[in-house]
Amino acid sequence: MAEAWDRDARRAGARTIVTGGHRGKGPTPSMAENMFALVKPAPGPGLVHAEVPVPPLGPRDCLVRVEAASICGTDLHIYRWDAWAASRLRPPLVVEHEFCGRVAAVGPGVDEVAVGDYVAGEGHLFCGRCYFCQTGQAHICARGRIIGVDTDGCFAQFVRLPAANLWKLDEGVPPAIGAIHDPLGNAVHAVMRARVSGASVAVVGCGPIGLCAVAVARRAGAAAVFGIDVNPYRLALAQGLGADAVVRSDAEDAVAAVRDLTDGWGPEVVLEMSGHPAGIRAAFEMLRKGGRLVLLGIPPGPVETDLSSWIIFKEARVLGVNGRRIFATWHRMAELLRTGLDVAPVVTHRFSLAEYETAFAVLAEGRCGKIVLVP
Amino acid sequence: MAEAWDRDARRAGARTIVTGGHRGKGPTPSMAENMFALVKPAPGPGLVHAEVPVPPLGPRDCLVRVEAASICGTDLHIYRWDAWAASRLRPPLVVEHEFCGRVAAVGPGVDEVAVGDYVAGEGHLFCGRCYFCQTGQAHICARGRIIGVDTDGCFAQFVRLPAANLWKLDEGVPPAIGAIHDPLGNAVHAVMRARVSGASVAVVGCGPIGLCAVAVARRAGAAAVFGIDVNPYRLALAQGLGADAVVRSDAEDAVAAVRDLTDGWGPEVVLEMSGHPAGIRAAFEMLRKGGRLVLLGIPPGPVETDLSSWIIFKEARVLGVNGRRIFATWHRMAELLRTGLDVAPVVTHRFSLAEYETAFAVLAEGRCGKIVLVP
Amino acid sequence: MAEAWDRDARRAGARTIVTGGHRGKGPTPSMAENMFALVKPAPGPGLVHAEVPVPPLGPRDCLVRVEAASICGTDLHIYRWDAWAASRLRPPLVVEHEFCGRVAAVGPGVDEVAVGDYVAGEGHLFCGRCYFCQTGQAHICARGRIIGVDTDGCFAQFVRLPAANLWKLDEGVPPAIGAIHDPLGNAVHAVMRARVSGASVAVVGCGPIGLCAVAVARRAGAAAVFGIDVNPYRLALAQGLGADAVVRSDAEDAVAAVRDLTDGWGPEVVLEMSGHPAGIRAAFEMLRKGGRLVLLGIPPGPVETDLSSWIIFKEARVLGVNGRRIFATWHRMAELLRTGLDVAPVVTHRFSLAEYETAFAVLAEGRCGKIVLVP
Amino acid sequence: MAEAWDRDARRAGARTIVTGGHRGKGPTPSMAENMFALVKPAPGPGLVHAEVPVPPLGPRDCLVRVEAASICGTDLHIYRWDAWAASRLRPPLVVEHEFCGRVAAVGPGVDEVAVGDYVAGEGHLFCGRCYFCQTGQAHICARGRIIGVDTDGCFAQFVRLPAANLWKLDEGVPPAIGAIHDPLGNAVHAVMRARVSGASVAVVGCGPIGLCAVAVARRAGAAAVFGIDVNPYRLALAQGLGADAVVRSDAEDAVAAVRDLTDGWGPEVVLEMSGHPAGIRAAFEMLRKGGRLVLLGIPPGPVETDLSSWIIFKEARVLGVNGRRIFATWHRMAELLRTGLDVAPVVTHRFSLAEYETAFAVLAEGRCGKIVLVP
Repeated sequence: MAEAWDRDARRAGARTIVTGGHRGKGPTPSMAENMFALVKPAPGPGLVHAEVPVPPLGPRDCLVRVEAASICGTDLHIYRWDAWAASRLRPPLVVEHEFCGRVAAVGPGVDEVAVGDYVAGEGHLFCGRCYFCQTGQAHICARGRIIGVDTDGCFAQFVRLPAANLWKLDEGVPPAIGAIHDPLGNAVHAVMRARVSGASVAVVGCGPIGLCAVAVARRAGAAAVFGIDVNPYRLALAQGLGADAVVRSDAEDAVAAVRDLTDGWGPEVVLEMSGHPAGIRAAFEMLRKGGRLVLLGIPPGPVETDLSSWIIFKEARVLGVNGRRIFATWHRMAELLRTGLDVAPVVTHRFSLAEYETAFAVLAEGRCGKIVLVP
Repeated sequence: MAEAWDRDARRAGARTIVTGGHRGKGPTPSMAENMFALVKPAPGPGLVHAEVPVPPLGPRDCLVRVEAASICGTDLHIYRWDAWAASRLRPPLVVEHEFCGRVAAVGPGVDEVAVGDYVAGEGHLFCGRCYFCQTGQAHICARGRIIGVDTDGCFAQFVRLPAANLWKLDEGVPPAIGAIHDPLGNAVHAVMRARVSGASVAVVGCGPIGLCAVAVARRAGAAAVFGIDVNPYRLALAQGLGADAVVRSDAEDAVAAVRDLTDGWGPEVVLEMSGHPAGIRAAFEMLRKGGRLVLLGIPPGPVETDLSSWIIFKEARVLGVNGRRIFATWHRMAELLRTGLDVAPVVTHRFSLAEYETAFAVLAEGRCGKIVLVP
Repeated sequence: MAEAWDRDARRAGARTIVTGGHRGKGPTPSMAENMFALVKPAPGPGLVHAEVPVPPLGPRDCLVRVEAASICGTDLHIYRWDAWAASRLRPPLVVEHEFCGRVAAVGPGVDEVAVGDYVAGEGHLFCGRCYFCQTGQAHICARGRIIGVDTDGCFAQFVRLPAANLWKLDEGVPPAIGAIHDPLGNAVHAVMRARVSGASVAVVGCGPIGLCAVAVARRAGAAAVFGIDVNPYRLALAQGLGADAVVRSDAEDAVAAVRDLTDGWGPEVVLEMSGHPAGIRAAFEMLRKGGRLVLLGIPPGPVETDLSSWIIFKEARVLGVNGRRIFATWHRMAELLRTGLDVAPVVTHRFSLAEYETAFAVLAEGRCGKIVLVP
Repeated sequence: MAEAWDRDARRAGARTIVTGGHRGKGPTPSMAENMFALVKPAPGPGLVHAEVPVPPLGPRDCLVRVEAASICGTDLHIYRWDAWAASRLRPPLVVEHEFCGRVAAVGPGVDEVAVGDYVAGEGHLFCGRCYFCQTGQAHICARGRIIGVDTDGCFAQFVRLPAANLWKLDEGVPPAIGAIHDPLGNAVHAVMRARVSGASVAVVGCGPIGLCAVAVARRAGAAAVFGIDVNPYRLALAQGLGADAVVRSDAEDAVAAVRDLTDGWGPEVVLEMSGHPAGIRAAFEMLRKGGRLVLLGIPPGPVETDLSSWIIFKEARVLGVNGRRIFATWHRMAELLRTGLDVAPVVTHRFSLAEYETAFAVLAEGRCGKIVLVP
């Protein structure tokens, strides 16, 4: 169903975005000066669906007509206007950074993409010149910013990005999958960093990134993959994505259960993707001595950490993961998608952009994987 | 069929080896003083099936009743008595090192295994005290020797090994698979050393180790696996073991074919398992720049090597593989076998030990995978 | 001075230990049946200097006549009988695990060392057969125990160890340095694990292991090494061992100071060797994004940890260090000592074993590096 | 002497290059339209010192007034017009790629450097968009070209480079050192790739890159560094740069000599920087089992390689090195130079650009390290 929808949407999109079969560099196709977008108009809870100006382009920028965009966990913080959101965002702002679409216009200095190209976008803006960018770590650029957080984002008909942030998608990638390349990239980066080949892997937290990680870990050669969550809906999705076993951590002792599944040694790799203090505790406790633990889920505050038992005595290797490598992770992701990685079941709902209130309600309830909005 | 046979053989073996349900340490079960074995009686071609004494045990040795043993490529060199064999072997000698069976007797200083245990054996003898043994590299021990080459081997009813060389098999592992743990271990070590997760992998040379490598690379998360050989019988086996594509290198340009399969970049990983100068050349030439190439197949002599184009300009990483890590590779192998690695199709023939002439003829002809002999 | 002392002590030791020029395997030299040792006689604070039986040997054991032993931070916990000590120790017990000496007797199954050999000892007892031992991680053996904690230790005239735990020292190594091989090995393992070549390195906590780490990091090619502590005596030692700069963290903002020393990026490597919550916080906060942080110092309890800022957003790599690799670290340590690593200034005091009360008072006051006791 | 010269040259250069204290972006300082350069005017041996036009700038290009440039081994091939040169170069061409100088003019799209900046240049031109550039391997870009080989080079008063290839030098770096950043970068990349911390290192071939490697390996924490060459002049330089021992390989058996220096095991790391078949043979033969060997020196043709003994049985890790990482290696190099790496003795001669015939004669004779030419 999702695929049929994607095909239709893409066809429709292709009709709309590029007028007159226009393709390649040259005069921008005629576009409305305004567009609809999800906007945080001022400090405080909520979002509005409003008409805003299409963003102007700098010489190295591109304008992308959005075909699909997906709701990130961050959006819930922004919607609710919690402490983090209040401290970071400067409204008015068009939110969100996960999307795909077709290039609708390019600045005069752009020649790496052309109007009509089907693209996703790396949401981390980077300077290209700092120590980190120059040493293959642009994703932790010293001057890094995030679209939809620090600049206008993609819950809109059009989004502006530097050409250097665009990633050309294979035409065969459905928009729902193109839209989640950013979080899927998180999962790919986490799995590759953890080196799962032939290893038992526990994924603690089966939100969308955790679900992607289940599928990626299997495809990347994990000996076995275990999904842990409190949410049975998501555990069912994890099973559909290839988890060898799932553990409902509010109903049983996840540490004991996973140790039982691993000859008593615990998994060689744990991917912490819940961000919950209890999940973090379980992740460290179940980890095999000498094992590798990825921290990706962001806890709401400092966590009581038993560094001695969890890390030192175990000789654990703890790996922070933030974003994804630009573009090493993207190439790996494309290779995996071309060769059998299937994350379609991660996307469970779609709505039009205007239906965002319904979408956020579904998200808050938790009976969902990834939710895609179509502008 | 192979499985049925294995089950039967194991049952039969269990009856024969351990008399009176004896199990555990204690008085050795009564055994004949002589046994049948394949022996190189003196320098020169050929082998004989002869009666020889059962080897005596040192305090840390074990005697294993062999349930299955497999023919290694090395045996062909020994059979034919080529220059390498003539320079290395000191007949009379019982040959071969690949086997599995049940412990029939143990020396007084042995407590890690017990009579009746189902085991395979690491064929590399190691001192445990040299620089290499003490730094996790016992497989390249300074005083390393190989059973069946430097000491009496396993083409016999019984084989003697130090307890430190035994590996307990899960009871569910069929003898035909137990017997090939040594070459399968080569493949596992090569694949793990090459890091194949999410990478395209070409296996050059689809002999038994290459065939194992095809299956292991797939299981360990390769994006795609390509098998290259001149032998259509073996290429068919490679396909059955999961190769995404196979290339018959005497009929088409293997380098061009594999580049076509990899967007023109060449595979990120190449496993050279042919030992043929032409295979080695193709392996290096097809390798992607910045890629990883494992050398495992042993060429008959020095090879004209274009170090500049093959390694330097490419910034290739070339990894020699000799044996397998003791016992890191064995643990990884067991984990993979328990979680879906299936190499049963690699074993294509079985014969009784006395039928060895037929077996060697089949091997010389090449229409086979691995050949197992049953004492 | 320390060296002159060591030379003398060694000469004296050589005279005393081995009677009649006896060397090699054979009848054990005559020894008293009792010896003096530092003993925890029963649960509760304090230690006593008392006469206890010389320990009997198993077939694979060695008896070492102790030439020098050093006080470990652990001893203070044992001396004071804190919660950890009360939960772990089972008195009566001879304490301590850091020592060197000469082999005085060997069990019948021992042939890797001979009476008269000059040795240090790995303090972690390991089974040699578990998953960890078989995969090159014997230092985190599933059945690991520590001498002086779980079995009788080396604050005594003689100590018993399995032959597998002995490390032959070059005769040129002074006993004071031989005695601290265990903690020096911690530092070597930490530095090698962190990969310091060409990198800026901050050592947080300049106790004996931290001081060793300063010297090792310099010798191992760190671009610059910074020592951080609250103790000016130890910071002066750190400078003597090659620190490029030292920071007194109770007098200035260590994070700001170290960032100033590293172009504002923070050090690429941080070695946390204080175990203090404030030191741990500073260690994480000063770490460069994308950097590597070793945790070795053991905090007294759980620590409030800002996993998001300290690890996740930074993409930090956090490496627990427990003990040292057996014997990869020992070989590396020997190579470094032979080629210029000088940690003699780490040892600042020596006392006879009977003067232990004075020694513990000096340690409690903190105006010391490592303290060596001579039985 | 070299430093005094450098200071003078820099001062003189500073006067000449930037007129009127001009600094920063803005109107280009007045420059002659022509300049002197070393030119290969047409296919065939030899070079000429001739007047040629100053190259015009594209929008992202910079013009650098060359303060110092150094002769690369490649130049000898070009000078002599050997088979490689004839197949690769398309005269007329200004040769050479190693230089430093000050930015004299910038294209309109350049803002990362300004007129007056003191810079060296990465000699490998890269596209920034191919698979290799996007995965942190721009130095092996799919469309890589080399200045002075594929485009006009730096043996000239001015050289044109993309702004993306410029590296800002610390003002304290003497021009003679700035000029050799490219080959020094080769050495730094080779040493970092080989991981020398605490390891014995043999450098086979003590030409300029080998000499740099001796110094870098010492600074980067090698346990010991051995220099091997046939040229006593260069071995003396190697000693001056910190080699613990040197071996004259035409006078003694280098393999045996280096094994003697390494307890019989051979060095853990070998850096092959000679490109001579005999050097390559010695490099592989002396390598410790399990060791790491960097191939950097480019042999004149295919080499008879004993893959079995040299790589497979040894489980060697062979690492090709081509160029240096852009700009990870440059950052590492700057860090090392700031913290004590001294390669000044590598530069033994300087001449004016017009004296190039004398310089090439010195180079051909071999009694030199690096030769610097001053335009």
